[in-house]
Amino acid sequence: MKVAALSGGVGGAKLLDGLAAVLAPADLTAIVNTGDDFVHWGLHIAPDLDTVMYTLSGLGDQQRGWGLAGESFRALSMVERYGGESWFQLGDLDLGTHIVRTEALARGETLSAVTARMFRGVGVEHRVLPMSDERRATMIDTTSHGTLTFQNWFVRERTAPQVERVWFDGDDAPAPGVVEALAAADLVIVAPSNPYVSIDPILALRGVREAVAAKPTVAVSPIVHGEAVKGPLGAMITQLTGRAASAAAVAAHYGDLLDGMAVQSADGAPIRTLETGVIMKDRADRARLARDVLAFGEALL
Amino acid sequence: MKVAALSGGVGGAKLLDGLAAVLAPADLTAIVNTGDDFVHWGLHIAPDLDTVMYTLSGLGDQQRGWGLAGESFRALSMVERYGGESWFQLGDLDLGTHIVRTEALARGETLSAVTARMFRGVGVEHRVLPMSDERRATMIDTTSHGTLTFQNWFVRERTAPQVERVWFDGDDAPAPGVVEALAAADLVIVAPSNPYVSIDPILALRGVREAVAAKPTVAVSPIVHGEAVKGPLGAMITQLTGRAASAAAVAAHYGDLLDGMAVQSADGAPIRTLETGVIMKDRADRARLARDVLAFGEALL
Repeated sequence: MKVAALSGGVGGAKLLDGLAAVLAPADLTAIVNTGDDFVHWGLHIAPDLDTVMYTLSGLGDQQRGWGLAGESFRALSMVERYGGESWFQLGDLDLGTHIVRTEALARGETLSAVTARMFRGVGVEHRVLPMSDERRATMIDTTSHGTLTFQNWFVRERTAPQVERVWFDGDDAPAPGVVEALAAADLVIVAPSNPYVSIDPILALRGVREAVAAKPTVAVSPIVHGEAVKGPLGAMITQLTGRAASAAAVAAHYGDLLDGMAVQSADGAPIRTLETGVIMKDRADRARLARDVLAFGEALL
Repeated sequence: MKVAALSGGVGGAKLLDGLAAVLAPADLTAIVNTGDDFVHWGLHIAPDLDTVMYTLSGLGDQQRGWGLAGESFRALSMVERYGGESWFQLGDLDLGTHIVRTEALARGETLSAVTARMFRGVGVEHRVLPMSDERRATMIDTTSHGTLTFQNWFVRERTAPQVERVWFDGDDAPAPGVVEALAAADLVIVAPSNPYVSIDPILALRGVREAVAAKPTVAVSPIVHGEAVKGPLGAMITQLTGRAASAAAVAAHYGDLLDGMAVQSADGAPIRTLETGVIMKDRADRARLARDVLAFGEALL
């Protein structure tokens, strides 16, 4: 069974790790949100791609779920001496990643090409595509701070400003291979990522929603017992829909794109539902959920 | 007495440290070679400015004479994983410096402006000017490898290719304040740096040689008992002049720009000479030599 998976950062990366553990490299293509990408200290940073790369390579910090294990912040300490911006904490190991990517982009290499090279460099065999090679930015209209880029809202303002609307600025071309991977898939999996700021940016690219709609698609709920496993999703659902956060609210957001959803046991069944454990505490959990979701998806084919 | 000092990296930085210890901030302007500046990993690196900054701030590695104390190379380890260039060893702390500079230059700040800001950031009160705000590159014609940029010759090729000629590529405008500082000086001091690749790049800028010639000028010999204190100068003198390395050969190179020279005891007197100890083993040595040179210069006024 060939699978294409749409993913954001931490939660999505865990499910991808599970899928990579149970699927051969030829059978999985991950398509990763780049709407959060931004430039800091002159470096091109792709938070979700990096979280996926660090997770799949095993180099990631298992505790935090993002960043690299054993990270240090020595370059940052010098930048602070010079009075530079330090609200975004870039680690020394992490800097190596951003430097290689930024230099490649400056030379004219595409984000797809340098991403493929970097994933290979850290030993990831499964195919991971950035959603787009172009600048495509997730923008947050807030009630108190006007329009913010995702990172300014998420990191600098710590998600405090209430969200009125999420929209996408820039070129809507998907990266080479994205639509093709969806067309070649037997099953599309929507990882347990934030639908508004991690999955919608991918779905909003030219031809992507249509390609997903044409395939059996299952999502894993990012909401467990009424709360987001991680991040600001719970509050966003309420701010954007007026409803309480629930797996059902996420399913309603995706609408008829979904053929099924894996939800935490006892979280109820808005659509055809697999009740299972969707919290991934360790790598064994990730592979177990991946197997559950694949079997669930296979039954829908 | 107002002093302007021309300097390259390690040896020059030590003398500047001594001068800064005995002269008030208003009485010393250092003019530092930027002909070795280069771009690596997309970052603007200014080796001599950084060596001077790290030395004057006390943050430098006292043992090596360049780089920062307690440096680590973790970003480099990641760049190597991705297959990036690693022949130039950039440290994590050092990266903070290059990131701040590169970002400022990309925003349109001049090298002079960001240099002033960075020196203040690490607590240096004496005035240090880059020789130029423009790209001005020291080029090495070699007998075996054609023309190399200074860094490719110095770091990548480890100074092995024999030097035929040194020349300077790019804009010959000095940075704002350079000619003015020389015009305002009572005494010009040429630090114990490589005359061909550290001092000549400064002297070759528009109006600088004339401004130095108009002032009493003393040099500190970078050659001691027939050998360079550090670096490839000994071999360069022989390759470029056919003479053995000596303080006299350095004095001959500067010609009538010099009114006097501080040389190591027993190294002979090509011109009006102060015999002293020119090897700076510690900070006390630096201040002692600075005092000797200032007194020697004062006697020439």
